[in-house]
Amino acid sequence: MLDYKLLAALAAVVEQAGFERAAQVLGLSQSAVSQRIKLLEARVGQPVLVRALPPVPTEIGRRLLNHVQQVRLLERDIQAQVPGLDEGGPPERLRIALNADSLATWWAQAVGGFCTEQGLLLELLVEDQDVGLKRMRAGEVAACVCGSERPVAGARALLLGSMRYRALASPGFIARYFPRGVTAAELAQAPAIVFGPDDLLQHRYLSALGVEGGFAYHLCPSSEGFVRLAEAGLGWGLMPELQVQEELAAGRLCELLPERPLDVPLYWHHWRSGGELLGALTQHLQRHAAAGLVAAKR
Amino acid sequence: MLDYKLLAALAAVVEQAGFERAAQVLGLSQSAVSQRIKLLEARVGQPVLVRALPPVPTEIGRRLLNHVQQVRLLERDIQAQVPGLDEGGPPERLRIALNADSLATWWAQAVGGFCTEQGLLLELLVEDQDVGLKRMRAGEVAACVCGSERPVAGARALLLGSMRYRALASPGFIARYFPRGVTAAELAQAPAIVFGPDDLLQHRYLSALGVEGGFAYHLCPSSEGFVRLAEAGLGWGLMPELQVQEELAAGRLCELLPERPLDVPLYWHHWRSGGELLGALTQHLQRHAAAGLVAAKR
Repeated sequence: MLDYKLLAALAAVVEQAGFERAAQVLGLSQSAVSQRIKLLEARVGQPVLVRALPPVPTEIGRRLLNHVQQVRLLERDIQAQVPGLDEGGPPERLRIALNADSLATWWAQAVGGFCTEQGLLLELLVEDQDVGLKRMRAGEVAACVCGSERPVAGARALLLGSMRYRALASPGFIARYFPRGVTAAELAQAPAIVFGPDDLLQHRYLSALGVEGGFAYHLCPSSEGFVRLAEAGLGWGLMPELQVQEELAAGRLCELLPERPLDVPLYWHHWRSGGELLGALTQHLQRHAAAGLVAAKR
Repeated sequence: MLDYKLLAALAAVVEQAGFERAAQVLGLSQSAVSQRIKLLEARVGQPVLVRALPPVPTEIGRRLLNHVQQVRLLERDIQAQVPGLDEGGPPERLRIALNADSLATWWAQAVGGFCTEQGLLLELLVEDQDVGLKRMRAGEVAACVCGSERPVAGARALLLGSMRYRALASPGFIARYFPRGVTAAELAQAPAIVFGPDDLLQHRYLSALGVEGGFAYHLCPSSEGFVRLAEAGLGWGLMPELQVQEELAAGRLCELLPERPLDVPLYWHHWRSGGELLGALTQHLQRHAAAGLVAAKR
């Protein structure tokens, strides 16, 4: 069998984003962690890590991490059946990548009961909906919620439903930039808010209105911050309907063009051999995610 | 003078987290960007980038980026005075690092008017309050809001006020874990929520209660997600008072121990030679940040 002490060192360095923190988590010295990585590299005959800040796995390192992730999921099952196997230490967290808007809206309600019943701790990683899958492929997470339908090798994708977005701005912003009503051409001239380089919702919205080319925008990688910036009149942007019900009701945010929502389907990606816990969580999500999402058109 | 074409290529690769996106932003081919980086490395006689995913600046690369950031701030002033100098293209964004909780609460209201008046676009980077300063030092941002008082070389730090945090949980969580009232020992046994490895607020809160040692926690790197998890009963945690006024009023979240807030001072770090725009923003923040913060005890 593989030497899992070495693989656990690699996983800790990547997950903790450094040798120092990995050493703390593993209860080892930094040089011991470093030696384990070197030994692993001697065995596989090539580097498993790029020594950058933070350290990044190489292609072969990524494949090893992917394997570690799946073994960990299987270990949960056997530890539940044979409690004596557990080496003690703090309970391991289930690492899940999801998009910021899901975390800001439906996620907690959908999984809360399950986590409490199972005594399950989560480590959530916020990734934009089109890039969360990279974490799956890299073996850094047990599951992910993202906008991509296509599962990575060894995993399955389940359609949960769609997040409904609306293009909103503050009344002051609308009065300032669109005194004669919102038109596509004027919208392209008003500052927008974009979550990050992978957020193309605003681009898609403008493109559906026939606007091509660039536009000026703020970058704000926080769901809550995005809503706050819009409320403060810095720009317009697409926000999850679920997140802004109160702002809409109070008139602090208004829809730019009536009834032009954008529905973004969300998929749950999980390892096929992910063990019983991940299977039970998948079934739970299948039943409970829908409450916060709209039915997706196929 | 230095060759700023080469430095701009370095900045784009780091800011865009890759050669492909840097090439798009610069309107160059990927190989042209790569050649510029190589030429820069030939000039300085050592690598400026570690070719990882994403690429990471070396120590010398970091110093060069720091310089680029300051030159860019000065360029804003001269471009405002001599508009013909501007090479066109989309307006540059002012890059500012701040903690997620500030972005989720007081930030937008404090800067909204200033950005609208000045036609200023922001690129916000979310960094935990104790690490945002690293971005300053690396020359990746023009300013930052963080919990550290000590400015980096060439910069100034200004005390804005304090964020007031309260330890909160849902009524269901409190009934489940503390049926006989909250005690320090029981609190250490109940699952907490922690923002990320740099968030020590929960540790500090327990430590002030005399609890030492580890405790079980979820990791959730999103301010809004943190509140949602607490509301759904997954754990207890320290949340900015500003962010949960409604949840407190509606009784969806309750304070664990009455009147034990934790105040965290926030500082605005800005380059000393940051130009007029950054100076004006600093003055504006000095007047407007206080509305969302409590006066800091020195």
